[in-house]
Amino acid sequence: MLSTKMHPDRLLPGDPSTRGIARELYRRVADAPIVSPHGHVPASLLAEDRPFASPTELLLTGDHYVTRVLHGAGISLGGVQAPAGEPAVDPREAWRVLAANWHLFRASSVQYWFEYQLSELFGIDDRLTADTADAVYDRIAELLTDDAYRPRALFERFGVDVLATTDDPAADLADHLALAADPTFTGRVLPTFRADRAMDPSAPGWLPALERLAAASEISCGTYAGLLEALRARRAWFRAAGGTATDTGVPDAWAVPLPAGEAERIHAAGLRGEATAEEGTAYRRDILYRLIEMSSEDGMVMQLHPGIHRNHHVPTLRRFGADTGHDLPVPMTYTEPLRRALNDFGTGTQLRLVLFTVDETSFSRELAPMAGFYPSVYVGAPWWFLDTPDAMERYRRAITDSAGFAKTSGFIDDTRAFCSIPARHDMARRVDAGYLASLVVTHRLTEEDAAEIADDLVRRVPYETFRIPRE
Amino acid sequence: MLSTKMHPDRLLPGDPSTRGIARELYRRVADAPIVSPHGHVPASLLAEDRPFASPTELLLTGDHYVTRVLHGAGISLGGVQAPAGEPAVDPREAWRVLAANWHLFRASSVQYWFEYQLSELFGIDDRLTADTADAVYDRIAELLTDDAYRPRALFERFGVDVLATTDDPAADLADHLALAADPTFTGRVLPTFRADRAMDPSAPGWLPALERLAAASEISCGTYAGLLEALRARRAWFRAAGGTATDTGVPDAWAVPLPAGEAERIHAAGLRGEATAEEGTAYRRDILYRLIEMSSEDGMVMQLHPGIHRNHHVPTLRRFGADTGHDLPVPMTYTEPLRRALNDFGTGTQLRLVLFTVDETSFSRELAPMAGFYPSVYVGAPWWFLDTPDAMERYRRAITDSAGFAKTSGFIDDTRAFCSIPARHDMARRVDAGYLASLVVTHRLTEEDAAEIADDLVRRVPYETFRIPRE
Amino acid sequence: MLSTKMHPDRLLPGDPSTRGIARELYRRVADAPIVSPHGHVPASLLAEDRPFASPTELLLTGDHYVTRVLHGAGISLGGVQAPAGEPAVDPREAWRVLAANWHLFRASSVQYWFEYQLSELFGIDDRLTADTADAVYDRIAELLTDDAYRPRALFERFGVDVLATTDDPAADLADHLALAADPTFTGRVLPTFRADRAMDPSAPGWLPALERLAAASEISCGTYAGLLEALRARRAWFRAAGGTATDTGVPDAWAVPLPAGEAERIHAAGLRGEATAEEGTAYRRDILYRLIEMSSEDGMVMQLHPGIHRNHHVPTLRRFGADTGHDLPVPMTYTEPLRRALNDFGTGTQLRLVLFTVDETSFSRELAPMAGFYPSVYVGAPWWFLDTPDAMERYRRAITDSAGFAKTSGFIDDTRAFCSIPARHDMARRVDAGYLASLVVTHRLTEEDAAEIADDLVRRVPYETFRIPRE
Repeated sequence: MLSTKMHPDRLLPGDPSTRGIARELYRRVADAPIVSPHGHVPASLLAEDRPFASPTELLLTGDHYVTRVLHGAGISLGGVQAPAGEPAVDPREAWRVLAANWHLFRASSVQYWFEYQLSELFGIDDRLTADTADAVYDRIAELLTDDAYRPRALFERFGVDVLATTDDPAADLADHLALAADPTFTGRVLPTFRADRAMDPSAPGWLPALERLAAASEISCGTYAGLLEALRARRAWFRAAGGTATDTGVPDAWAVPLPAGEAERIHAAGLRGEATAEEGTAYRRDILYRLIEMSSEDGMVMQLHPGIHRNHHVPTLRRFGADTGHDLPVPMTYTEPLRRALNDFGTGTQLRLVLFTVDETSFSRELAPMAGFYPSVYVGAPWWFLDTPDAMERYRRAITDSAGFAKTSGFIDDTRAFCSIPARHDMARRVDAGYLASLVVTHRLTEEDAAEIADDLVRRVPYETFRIPRE
Repeated sequence: MLSTKMHPDRLLPGDPSTRGIARELYRRVADAPIVSPHGHVPASLLAEDRPFASPTELLLTGDHYVTRVLHGAGISLGGVQAPAGEPAVDPREAWRVLAANWHLFRASSVQYWFEYQLSELFGIDDRLTADTADAVYDRIAELLTDDAYRPRALFERFGVDVLATTDDPAADLADHLALAADPTFTGRVLPTFRADRAMDPSAPGWLPALERLAAASEISCGTYAGLLEALRARRAWFRAAGGTATDTGVPDAWAVPLPAGEAERIHAAGLRGEATAEEGTAYRRDILYRLIEMSSEDGMVMQLHPGIHRNHHVPTLRRFGADTGHDLPVPMTYTEPLRRALNDFGTGTQLRLVLFTVDETSFSRELAPMAGFYPSVYVGAPWWFLDTPDAMERYRRAITDSAGFAKTSGFIDDTRAFCSIPARHDMARRVDAGYLASLVVTHRLTEEDAAEIADDLVRRVPYETFRIPRE
Repeated sequence: MLSTKMHPDRLLPGDPSTRGIARELYRRVADAPIVSPHGHVPASLLAEDRPFASPTELLLTGDHYVTRVLHGAGISLGGVQAPAGEPAVDPREAWRVLAANWHLFRASSVQYWFEYQLSELFGIDDRLTADTADAVYDRIAELLTDDAYRPRALFERFGVDVLATTDDPAADLADHLALAADPTFTGRVLPTFRADRAMDPSAPGWLPALERLAAASEISCGTYAGLLEALRARRAWFRAAGGTATDTGVPDAWAVPLPAGEAERIHAAGLRGEATAEEGTAYRRDILYRLIEMSSEDGMVMQLHPGIHRNHHVPTLRRFGADTGHDLPVPMTYTEPLRRALNDFGTGTQLRLVLFTVDETSFSRELAPMAGFYPSVYVGAPWWFLDTPDAMERYRRAITDSAGFAKTSGFIDDTRAFCSIPARHDMARRVDAGYLASLVVTHRLTEEDAAEIADDLVRRVPYETFRIPRE
């Protein structure tokens, strides 16, 4: 039977002398605590600490990186997960579909993360196939009933020091506060302020988002000025709950202030349900400018990731909801769109702008050059479609010369699949060790410097970039 | 004298351990039959089976990859081939020009393909130089008089199982039918439906294309509706002749249906010779949408390759015609342009859309993410300016994680130079073996999986992607 | 104490067999004379031959590649250099700031160049740290008082054969002429004609530029026709002073002639200070077309580098002037913008257009394909943000197949930091040796060809591309 047993040298360079150096560098950080400053695991998972329902929910339907591969091969999402409002798919049947199609994942990062979880978390080294599907399923299901496999126990076992969540500005953050107040829970779970839904008055969710904001802040959002005040109030609430960062995902990076009267006019049109798409775009670009301004005032680290067409396939959105694998990248540029905001706030000491991209051409062309000059600008790690060993290495080779290591974000797992967190961080640590080793072997870096940088990337950079206190 | 003798390990990775694995993977597929699902060799070449006229026609003027390198170095095309309507250039003189400038080709793919043909096909291992020019010419010319060097004999010797041609929608496909009916010819030569000339009513060739279409289909193209009906009829004719695929080359990937009245209006303007460039573009984008719709109905595999400015240098077009080396790429995007069509047809089981690019930035940014979600979308192999060992490896590294191997096209030679077909396929097999070996040596893939994938890429993927029966 | 002693095999490939070949290739060219056909060292430096003022001026404030890294890390430019009109920063204090932050440069090209200078030029192998700062400073300061460290002596020691400067069209070129007439100076210092400031009538510096031009040429620039005539006259002056090339940096590559009347109309509006931004752009694109036309007439090699947003951060421009580290790239395309000019002049024998980019996506997509066909088009070396070992290798892998080696510029140091010139050329020679060795080891190139190409890239290509006589 094929084994998925992870090789101790996996992902390290093939060349023996480089591998030897990489192995030493990796060893330094292999067991370092995990800082995850950006992700989508809900705080309730840890606050409630309920056992995971099934292997399928944990490893398959809970990770749209997995379901989209099946979908791309012609297996309807409905084959493994139920559309909204329909009876659930039998989890064992869904698991069998996955197992029978496991060959689709060969050589992908998803295979790596998945098999890492099987092997390291569940001690299962059998390859997933139609034949092994049931045995693997049963073994995982059995382990999931054990308290050692409940979220908090795993959080400790994974060695997570800090986990950031992503939250609506109106969120009460009760779970975050409860965890912080719980003496039996030693990790940190920090909220991240994400106000995307309040940015575009021509989009369907805008009015409800404003209503939630007004209710949570007790500040009327009936005017544009009121909305800005409410956002500021909620940011303060997030900071009080330990939040150090915000997150913004927008179609493009343009940040352009509107004259106050024009912003109020579009705001009013939005309240009447009459804002056009053009007005919505102008308003959204104004709000982006205001969010940068707010970060320059309150020092919350601003993560910006433009360049995704969300929910590309509307029929799938309607049946299965958002985050179902069809957010798709478009070409992206930053130099011109952020010029105004960087001229106004880019050299202050408060603003910190971590720029992510899904268009890797912007790494060497714009992001590294911008971070190389602007003290406020940092280059986010390669993520989403770029979270692969090869893309991670391309990222380092594209940005290090202009932006060094200190102007980067540290690894970002960006996941909603809780158990994939250690697998993802392990991959990044290995790839970085290999990259650094390649610099050592070509005498571009001394071994001492490489060791220091390897440590920094895991033990220092993510804390400093995200202004998270090291406790 | 310098020898071009091909090294048995050429193109395999330099590192000894990786090379060993690559060598084994390559051996599995080195002699596998060739499937060429997209190319520009005419069926008449095989139907008529005439001896090749001269080494120059075969290897130089028949391959604009070769002539453009000379042109770029300042050697007028007229130095090796005659402009339309002028007396032919002496083939031996043209050959001498090539030989004297052979250093220009150093390290290029063209050198590889050319020397592969000299060595493997003609047994000539001398380097082409001014000194060897005549001897090489004479030896090839002598061999070309041998029946073993006529097209059909070479077809067999090359081990071609399937060769697809590119054909006008009005083509009678007589040569294809004759070959299929010929019991002495065991290969398959399949037509590909290419209707580019019928797409833009503001372009010069549109009216004649419609006239040909109407004549072939016996359906009037006097209306837009008639044109669509004629196209459908001709697609059926192609399918009946064994065709499984269509091909479309357009300036951009926008596919946007027009209201029927508007399409008819522009069609009528085109018939009067009055369609504007803007109308031509809108109509062309409508037709692209209709072609995707047709593929979603009849299941013909649709190849789409936008992003080329054709015939960039008009004086050369006028003197020497099209396909003379100055089709030039422009930046290209797919996510937005294909959204409407993929929402309408992208998850059906009939549509298959193989997307090619000459802007390699779209591999990781758009094509792989799209193919990763849409069951209808496949990523075409790196071709045209990207058909080099390095670009092929970049392609694999950019797309495998999102789109795997099953969502790719298999190697595409895209050539009109018949004898370069085995050279090109051999290059791709070697590069893929090297890529897979690099995954094995870094423990991202087991040796068993790598072997299976190597086989699949040659023996399964091209058939399945292009819906060609394996006989 | 950490040593920066340069390893003899630095930057060569890590794999032992490839390294051995690379080492031999590098040895062939390590000591070859330096041709620097594009840079920003002023001719006065050599004409006056004054000792360098201090280590700080020589190595820190004289190189904005260095100061921008400090700035990006939050160290105000004012910490190391004084704003215009303010008293100078103490050079030793500035040096200490650099030394205390030297870790920011780890693994960057700047580190490589800087430590190369310390080691090879000043014999200092101590790592720069807060502790060593003063000793290193003192040692360099002491050496700078030695005649052997004056510009001309270093010019000889560096083995510079040709150094091109960048000059205003109105420059009298007195320093160039003096150097050429000086029998004790054996190198060549060639002027480069750069007329950027005369191109945009809506930009602030346009009128003064025209006034200078008129004064120098004794031709009135009161009309557009007069401006063109003055430019032609100054180009002749540059040629008479040994200049073989021009240089143009513009926001985009569009070259589109205006009707003569329209150009005159905008010119007149510009003289009245009334040209709009749109008019400025149209005029600038016309002038670009005219400059290409002039090169097609007088044979001056035209360097074109579009795609930079200059002086992105206006407050820094105001305080510290231009060239202070915040010129930032934008996405760039060439195929469409240059079509008209290449149709008109692209296949003539006089025009030579060396295209540079800071958007590396254009290498494989446009520049190599264009150079592959158009005899007039050459691909400039990777420069500016792309002058790193990894980017240099990506450049070779992106362009060699389409454009070969003969259609490239040879290495361009593009520096205003005089003493970094040998460091930069040494880096390029090593990277090219490694690239060629990788082709040899994978049997894509014979050792003989690789040796010849290595020689050509240093000893032949830069002369031929820039039409500089080999003396």
